[in-house]
Amino acid sequence: MEVAPQMIENIKLEDGTNAVEDDDFVDPWTVSSKSNAGVDYDKLIKRFGSSHIDGDLIERLEKVAGKPVHPLIRRGIFFSHRDLHTLLNMVEAGKKFYLYTGRGPSSESMHLGHLVPFIVTKWLQETFDVPLVIQLTDDEKTLWKDLTVEQSMRMARENAKDIIAIGFDVNKTFIFANLDYMGRCSAFYQNIIRIQKCVTFNQVKGIFGFGDSDVIGKIGFPAAQAAPAFSTTFPFIFGNDKLPVLIPCAIDQDPYFRMTRDVSPRLGFPKPALIHSSFFPALQGAKTKMSASEDNSAIFLTDTPKQIKTKINKHAFSGGRPTLEEHRELGGNTDTDVSFQLLRFFLYDDDELERIRVAYSTGELLSGEIKKIAIETLQPIVADHQTKRKEVTDEILDQFMTLRPLNYQIGSSQKKK
Amino acid sequence: MEVAPQMIENIKLEDGTNAVEDDDFVDPWTVSSKSNAGVDYDKLIKRFGSSHIDGDLIERLEKVAGKPVHPLIRRGIFFSHRDLHTLLNMVEAGKKFYLYTGRGPSSESMHLGHLVPFIVTKWLQETFDVPLVIQLTDDEKTLWKDLTVEQSMRMARENAKDIIAIGFDVNKTFIFANLDYMGRCSAFYQNIIRIQKCVTFNQVKGIFGFGDSDVIGKIGFPAAQAAPAFSTTFPFIFGNDKLPVLIPCAIDQDPYFRMTRDVSPRLGFPKPALIHSSFFPALQGAKTKMSASEDNSAIFLTDTPKQIKTKINKHAFSGGRPTLEEHRELGGNTDTDVSFQLLRFFLYDDDELERIRVAYSTGELLSGEIKKIAIETLQPIVADHQTKRKEVTDEILDQFMTLRPLNYQIGSSQKKK
Repeated sequence: MEVAPQMIENIKLEDGTNAVEDDDFVDPWTVSSKSNAGVDYDKLIKRFGSSHIDGDLIERLEKVAGKPVHPLIRRGIFFSHRDLHTLLNMVEAGKKFYLYTGRGPSSESMHLGHLVPFIVTKWLQETFDVPLVIQLTDDEKTLWKDLTVEQSMRMARENAKDIIAIGFDVNKTFIFANLDYMGRCSAFYQNIIRIQKCVTFNQVKGIFGFGDSDVIGKIGFPAAQAAPAFSTTFPFIFGNDKLPVLIPCAIDQDPYFRMTRDVSPRLGFPKPALIHSSFFPALQGAKTKMSASEDNSAIFLTDTPKQIKTKINKHAFSGGRPTLEEHRELGGNTDTDVSFQLLRFFLYDDDELERIRVAYSTGELLSGEIKKIAIETLQPIVADHQTKRKEVTDEILDQFMTLRPLNYQIGSSQKKK
Repeated sequence: MEVAPQMIENIKLEDGTNAVEDDDFVDPWTVSSKSNAGVDYDKLIKRFGSSHIDGDLIERLEKVAGKPVHPLIRRGIFFSHRDLHTLLNMVEAGKKFYLYTGRGPSSESMHLGHLVPFIVTKWLQETFDVPLVIQLTDDEKTLWKDLTVEQSMRMARENAKDIIAIGFDVNKTFIFANLDYMGRCSAFYQNIIRIQKCVTFNQVKGIFGFGDSDVIGKIGFPAAQAAPAFSTTFPFIFGNDKLPVLIPCAIDQDPYFRMTRDVSPRLGFPKPALIHSSFFPALQGAKTKMSASEDNSAIFLTDTPKQIKTKINKHAFSGGRPTLEEHRELGGNTDTDVSFQLLRFFLYDDDELERIRVAYSTGELLSGEIKKIAIETLQPIVADHQTKRKEVTDEILDQFMTLRPLNYQIGSSQKKK
């Protein structure tokens, strides 16, 4: 099988040069931008071949959902999608679907940005009352990082507790870590082999940029991230039903699902629908994604109120002007100001956010003042998370990771093969 | 990690040309020779970098075993080895080891040649009273052949019944099929990831000849065949003990274990020892290995006495002379005569075999007569196998495939990390 032309196109710019030569670079392992405003998402949509989440789609989503969309969608932080209209058609026709998202557990502690896809996933789960599967790719982290199997597996469990603390319903949510789940359900490996039979090295080379000196584990891994997009990977939830899936994820994960969408019809599955989030800015500015391995680049879910205060005051990139006079006269730049961006992600009162935007843009609000608002907004969110995380015992974690039916009746799908 | 120079050397001829340009071609998927006497095994040993099983080694093996070696070893059908001396040193020092062999289940029915490694494995198991693991690579067959996951899994079970019928002791033998076992023991996948982290595409390209248009399943698969050479892949048998292993296999499987031996020290395991068998001739002659997918190239374990008779009479390549007169004068060629070769593999009375060899070589015995001897030797062997196979119920098969301790006490190895 040769790589489908459109898949190669996806990572090429219009002039034929590769993405890496552009101002922005985005793949599942590296995100960088030369601009303080961050990655050019319009360009990215064009390059990846996905679609904008526009006003019409949001309106339709609200109609089907019967309520306003989550602020992270309304504010364009979830900005791109694939086949969301198709999925909504199915929902309207009364068909079932499920949600799939995940995380690569590369550190003990997650940072604020890691919450973003999970917050919207939770909203979708509650809105549509659908089962959710959450994958922890501890195998990926063993392969890519200087981590042993044992270290990655431990981090997967730690991270799972943070995810549970977000408030997922145990009756609707199955959490699994690859290095553990692979040995508990042969359907997972069987689907991986089915996928790996459909994808050539040429293709993963085109999609992920793998080369001849990459280890064979990396080359095979994309199938492990693709498999959960096929409902038969979870026979205890879905039986043999071939259900549509919606995948909320950061846009850097899209290459995996472009590959998955290419394979789906060949295995008799509907193509997964996706909604993509933009990147959460590093404290130092939107040029890079936050890094869980650089302490001062991010606010961690384990940070104390004091650490949050210090980090924002010391490290949060400011869109303010060099002098007080200039700032009062010209106003701050909310596009590059990290404190304002943090509020866009976590202050869900639209009127209040707009008031802050206007005040900062016009110079009424100073850099130190917007930092203070950001600090006071985030401190209780992180503290609340820590309280909830403490309640997540090993026993609760094991419940989420137990193979069991969820709120789905096997055979209830109208889309069967 | 770059491919170790000696590993590339292994598949190059001395003059720098590739194995494929030689008269013989041998890799795990293709064995062919331009000579009626079959593959030149001396050349193969040199090319692969293994060692001859010579008179001294056989003598030593008999001393340690305390009995004569199996005819398949004495007759040079098992002709090559790696580190057998090292393994015997360990046995003499009272250390434990285990046996590992396997089969790729590409057809419902196995042929006579498939029995060869298992016969010697059984002899080794009985002689040294050691645990044995048998892998059925149904994942490999799904990836390489036009077979679905379900078809390969069914064939694995059918083939396992034939293997059990050879007479393995259920208290010492664990049989597993990858597409099933992967989902029953996470240690298997965890070791695969450890191995896949140590091997680059460059290396598998050098060892197996993979190219850019190969599917990623093939590229990753060698780790699945390597993993059982690490005892921690079977925690219910060996706990965390890192035991030496002896792998009896046909020489075409050696590339997998060259790769494994390269990885072993990096994962803290002893390098696996190997003994290699030569190929079982196709009925049409030793130019090719028997093929389970070509009906008339082999005697199958399901063949009736009549089919065996017809196949040998019609298809077995004869080393006899064109005319009776010539044959009486010059004698037959036992090197190319398939009937005689079949007797080398399955007639274990040395005196009788030598009598036949002399009689055929001197022209005393005619082509039709040696065919008759071969037919009458094989008919009861195959019939006896069929009787035993009928006794292998699904229940017995499930016993062999159940995860359980074998005749090994965890922690009893003196070679621990």
